[in-house]
Amino acid sequence: MPDLSGLFTPDRVAIVGANDEEGSVGRALLKNLSSFDGDVIPVNPNLETVLGRECYSEIGDVPDAASIDLAVVAVPATVAVDVVRQIGHAGITDVVVITAGFSETGGEGEQREQELIDVAEEYDLNLVGPNCIGIISTPSGLNATFVRGEPPVGSISFISQSGAFIAAVLGWAAQHGVGFKDIVSLGNEAVLDEIDFIEQWSDDPDTDVILAYLEDIGDGQRFIETARDVTRETPIVVIKSSRTEAGAEAAASHTGSIAGSEDAYEAGLHQAGVLRAMNIEEVFDYGQVLAGQPLLEDDDIAVVTNGGGPGVLTTDAVSDSRLTIAEFGDDVGAELADVLPGEADVANPLDIIGDADIDRFRESLDIVLGDESVAGAIVLCVPTETLEFDDLADAIGDLQGRHEKPVVTCLMGGEEADRAANTLEPYGIPNYFDPVRAVSSLEVLAKYRDVTEREYESPEAFDIEKERAREILLQAAERDVDHLGVEVMELLDTYGIPIPASDLAESASEAESIAEEIGGPVAMKIVSPDILHKSDIGGVEVDVPIEAVRGTYQTLRERAIDHDPDATVLGVQVQEFVDPDESTETIVGVKRDPQFGHLVMFGLGGIFVQIFEDTAFRVAPVSEREAREMTEEIQAAPMLQGARGRTPADVDGVVETIQRISQLVTDFPAITELDINPLVVSPEGVHAIDLRLTVDRETLPVETARETDG
Amino acid sequence: MPDLSGLFTPDRVAIVGANDEEGSVGRALLKNLSSFDGDVIPVNPNLETVLGRECYSEIGDVPDAASIDLAVVAVPATVAVDVVRQIGHAGITDVVVITAGFSETGGEGEQREQELIDVAEEYDLNLVGPNCIGIISTPSGLNATFVRGEPPVGSISFISQSGAFIAAVLGWAAQHGVGFKDIVSLGNEAVLDEIDFIEQWSDDPDTDVILAYLEDIGDGQRFIETARDVTRETPIVVIKSSRTEAGAEAAASHTGSIAGSEDAYEAGLHQAGVLRAMNIEEVFDYGQVLAGQPLLEDDDIAVVTNGGGPGVLTTDAVSDSRLTIAEFGDDVGAELADVLPGEADVANPLDIIGDADIDRFRESLDIVLGDESVAGAIVLCVPTETLEFDDLADAIGDLQGRHEKPVVTCLMGGEEADRAANTLEPYGIPNYFDPVRAVSSLEVLAKYRDVTEREYESPEAFDIEKERAREILLQAAERDVDHLGVEVMELLDTYGIPIPASDLAESASEAESIAEEIGGPVAMKIVSPDILHKSDIGGVEVDVPIEAVRGTYQTLRERAIDHDPDATVLGVQVQEFVDPDESTETIVGVKRDPQFGHLVMFGLGGIFVQIFEDTAFRVAPVSEREAREMTEEIQAAPMLQGARGRTPADVDGVVETIQRISQLVTDFPAITELDINPLVVSPEGVHAIDLRLTVDRETLPVETARETDG
Repeated sequence: MPDLSGLFTPDRVAIVGANDEEGSVGRALLKNLSSFDGDVIPVNPNLETVLGRECYSEIGDVPDAASIDLAVVAVPATVAVDVVRQIGHAGITDVVVITAGFSETGGEGEQREQELIDVAEEYDLNLVGPNCIGIISTPSGLNATFVRGEPPVGSISFISQSGAFIAAVLGWAAQHGVGFKDIVSLGNEAVLDEIDFIEQWSDDPDTDVILAYLEDIGDGQRFIETARDVTRETPIVVIKSSRTEAGAEAAASHTGSIAGSEDAYEAGLHQAGVLRAMNIEEVFDYGQVLAGQPLLEDDDIAVVTNGGGPGVLTTDAVSDSRLTIAEFGDDVGAELADVLPGEADVANPLDIIGDADIDRFRESLDIVLGDESVAGAIVLCVPTETLEFDDLADAIGDLQGRHEKPVVTCLMGGEEADRAANTLEPYGIPNYFDPVRAVSSLEVLAKYRDVTEREYESPEAFDIEKERAREILLQAAERDVDHLGVEVMELLDTYGIPIPASDLAESASEAESIAEEIGGPVAMKIVSPDILHKSDIGGVEVDVPIEAVRGTYQTLRERAIDHDPDATVLGVQVQEFVDPDESTETIVGVKRDPQFGHLVMFGLGGIFVQIFEDTAFRVAPVSEREAREMTEEIQAAPMLQGARGRTPADVDGVVETIQRISQLVTDFPAITELDINPLVVSPEGVHAIDLRLTVDRETLPVETARETDG
Repeated sequence: MPDLSGLFTPDRVAIVGANDEEGSVGRALLKNLSSFDGDVIPVNPNLETVLGRECYSEIGDVPDAASIDLAVVAVPATVAVDVVRQIGHAGITDVVVITAGFSETGGEGEQREQELIDVAEEYDLNLVGPNCIGIISTPSGLNATFVRGEPPVGSISFISQSGAFIAAVLGWAAQHGVGFKDIVSLGNEAVLDEIDFIEQWSDDPDTDVILAYLEDIGDGQRFIETARDVTRETPIVVIKSSRTEAGAEAAASHTGSIAGSEDAYEAGLHQAGVLRAMNIEEVFDYGQVLAGQPLLEDDDIAVVTNGGGPGVLTTDAVSDSRLTIAEFGDDVGAELADVLPGEADVANPLDIIGDADIDRFRESLDIVLGDESVAGAIVLCVPTETLEFDDLADAIGDLQGRHEKPVVTCLMGGEEADRAANTLEPYGIPNYFDPVRAVSSLEVLAKYRDVTEREYESPEAFDIEKERAREILLQAAERDVDHLGVEVMELLDTYGIPIPASDLAESASEAESIAEEIGGPVAMKIVSPDILHKSDIGGVEVDVPIEAVRGTYQTLRERAIDHDPDATVLGVQVQEFVDPDESTETIVGVKRDPQFGHLVMFGLGGIFVQIFEDTAFRVAPVSEREAREMTEEIQAAPMLQGARGRTPADVDGVVETIQRISQLVTDFPAITELDINPLVVSPEGVHAIDLRLTVDRETLPVETARETDG
């Protein structure tokens, strides 16, 4: 891992492409650096001085050039690579390339970016960009960007894959008291990417929270591994855009990147312990509250208000969230009754009535925060003649500090509310107008508690027959097809997934003898690489008694030929029949995502997946805890768990099957798609009834380094 | 309908209980009225002058008292009723009672409120309150409230069941450019309620939008009837709190009112054409955009931006909404290419690139708004050196006006964005920081278009046998039970709902002969008022062949007695067996809601209702359009409509059944609960298989005035 601290703590900064022309990037950079603590050295071959500073022709001409800590490049694209080479040659390792005209423009630009990468490699540069708006580090006043706005000092560090996003939020954030430590515009991420900065800031004592605007994640597996560690200590909040098809199209047109599936991002970010924000306000709300307030130790909170209506709205919002309205302890009720007027109801939400003054507010909140059953509080106040918001803000700040429980406020109003928000800022207490936002902020303190409490468990390595699995896949591949089906059910057997007794029959009599050996009714399925959806052409018959097996064999073959006279029919699979009564059909599926690798899916079969889209996803490898979460987070979970008097199904069997499938696809990355549909689950166990599989035959023999065999 | 315009257009206003004591309500009222256009007359028996004005001892002492247009009462509760009587006696009809201590305190207060109602009736008073913060009408500067904040003039009128809510938003709204016409704090609604003001403002040419904060609706049926008319011309936006159980509890403790079910409110507000906001920002966002912008003629919109990232976020938000990203016409593409630099992609969202100046913005937006395929636009701009927000704001306002298509903006930033918002205000264009809010505002213009296009159709009056239905219900009632079941299936027949051939058997041999008459396998169900959940005790057998009917009869009786030796067993219902294959089980249910009356429910049976809660509700009477919407809005709708190659079920039959049930419960309000479970739907038709019914026997013979019989 590279040490990137030099980017943020330079003493001497060179601006290559410094300029004094109105509206130029070079001039804006110099202006933004005017309050920087260190030295700023302009470089431009066409100028002798820039804005009163001596200007050098090239970086090598600067006296003691090797002691320059940071070089910012804002020269035309055509000369940018040469300039970066000179910088490397001068012995400078931290570089920000603002210049655009690289891979985002395609063609020539892509080649230029490759050259830039080569130079960076040659000189071992920590290179940000190209095609970015620069970086900021507030403690030293380093604002090496060309956009307007001066963010206040704080403990939030922020990366963005969109420079415009940074430009959009700087002024707004300052207005709303959001303070930053470092800000990085990632640009094309030719060298340094989002993961590098997440890693960097996890070791930065001055960064309490990491925020990120991301349009894509280059290496999903590396992201999960890194962020999973970082989020134990430092919360990461991500706003991930291009979530939708139209959004992804829009993003592709301005960055040229291909987005992975939203399901993969959702799963990957969750597994990494990343908190996800769904709009811009949320990112900064979460950042502020995580930076300013302690975690919520459990989910029970109190609401203290001087107005009924806002109290009710807040209670609704709490009910919509994972938080709950705490029940006050008995003693606490009596204490509150002492300080409240007779007509006040001692209940949570606590309405201390419209004529409450500062003392009533202070005393009530003190009692409430002292209650063991209260983990945190929301304080609401509407403007009245009986108190001043500013005094209340100080009282709340003081009480929050003494009780060390998180508090957020809705001191609701116009300018007086803004002033109170300023008063609350040094206490790290965010103030909102809308109670919905206050609840959502407090809730994130509970969500992050979960992340910190989550123990990382390695995926289980089951005892499997990897060699036999490889042989089955290779054999299948020899048949020159990409799509495999029920004929490779044995593959599941090698990874310990229960399958019905089964064999491939190539004649009617063979079918009959297989059925006799199985003993009892069988299911029969046509096997043909040319027929993907067997049921649709009548290629499946179930509950076939032994005496009907011969006839059914012929019927199935005829249907296949009727459907497609040229279809290669390999035979008919004769399977032990698993009675669907008293059992539930589920699906375990896998897809290979371009960013995250294998994504494992679980859901109930048929319409539950197709119409209700009631599915759960995790990026492989999937641990036991994660597999269990998958069975719990689908809406239909009660159907497996034994709702309304049903016998609970073998959920443990499902959990194990998910893990074993995860192990299979991790061992054989060439598997690009896999579906066990259905995986029938009964109280007695699970049975994989049918299988579809797509392999990338090119990479089939290749396997991962991770050996799980024997 | 009372004419309430006098409340808002008084020339002479008396403040009974005027005061000069610091912090008193009487003083705050006088202060808030200091910029009122008309006369303000203080009344207080203990003072000679108040704040420099001559003060009268009582209302009757005021010269020409009958010409006082509005009396505001802020006296102690103990004398309030007398004071209102004096006001009535003096010939004044418009009264606002601010005084608290009425029904909200219970006991004595409730009696006091009844006296107040009696006085109001005697003098035919338009009385607001009691227990409210007052009323505001901005055109004349009438601020007859005691809270801080001076709302700007505008075309939004606003009612609130919480005074604190008004106090909370006044200052904020002023800061955000939300202008009001009239504001009413409803208080206890002893006389005038939310419906009266909705009616009043529907005729007010200066009110463009009605906003409401509601905790409950007293008379749901009257609300729907009134609002359905009003919303054709004037949009109503409601934020309904106490949506959740905890919220309703909190509301009950401060208002004493009992809330109806959230399902009923959701259905009732929808049927009334009311737009629902889920948080405070949304109410005012919707109000502002509806007041300021024309409707969106279809759902295709354009996004014009100078920053990629914000454009992507906006596109995601559009995809999440009902809106769609318009496809530009071919000509338009060519026109745009002319005004954009070469590296810009001509696509929607249209990224006109970071160096865009005011001309490029103006030209692009002009072309885009001129495109026939574009119904409205969102303009995004991040701060750059190349343009000033203020100029852009004026350009956008001008273009919006010329094209007469709705536009909302995200000129994103800090103070410069606030200034731009002020510039946009006179154009009626709202500016947001977060694109999610911009999309949601534009979306509401499409939602309201739907409301205005909706034609009101009266519920169909089917030809039914009401007399026979009444007899069945009366007969059943004579049995001295409230819960009826399969034995009254005939009731459904009287209202034209298909039921299987069926009869009640009181002996095994009778059961057999009924089965023989039906001819074929039958379903058999125990009939007992003491056994509500028949299936749970094995009280139902299906697909019983004729030869097994005698034995099954005995078995069912035995199971009933095993379950409850004291159970009254009326016999066994022998029913035509409807094969569940090729058919879908649905539920049509009814519940009587305290506020809205009968609420009709539709959903798929079993786990779809129990676990997925996939249900649709409408308040009865239900029209055909509404019944059809119910079948379409459940998530499982594709299962009925013929998803994935299934034959479509008889949805028309379901739609008719819902309407016939609606007619039944409307005709017999004594039915408090009813469930057809299942209503089996096949491609050929519908069949009600089982019925549960609860009647309020006290009111059973009573029927509605509406006669629908033959």
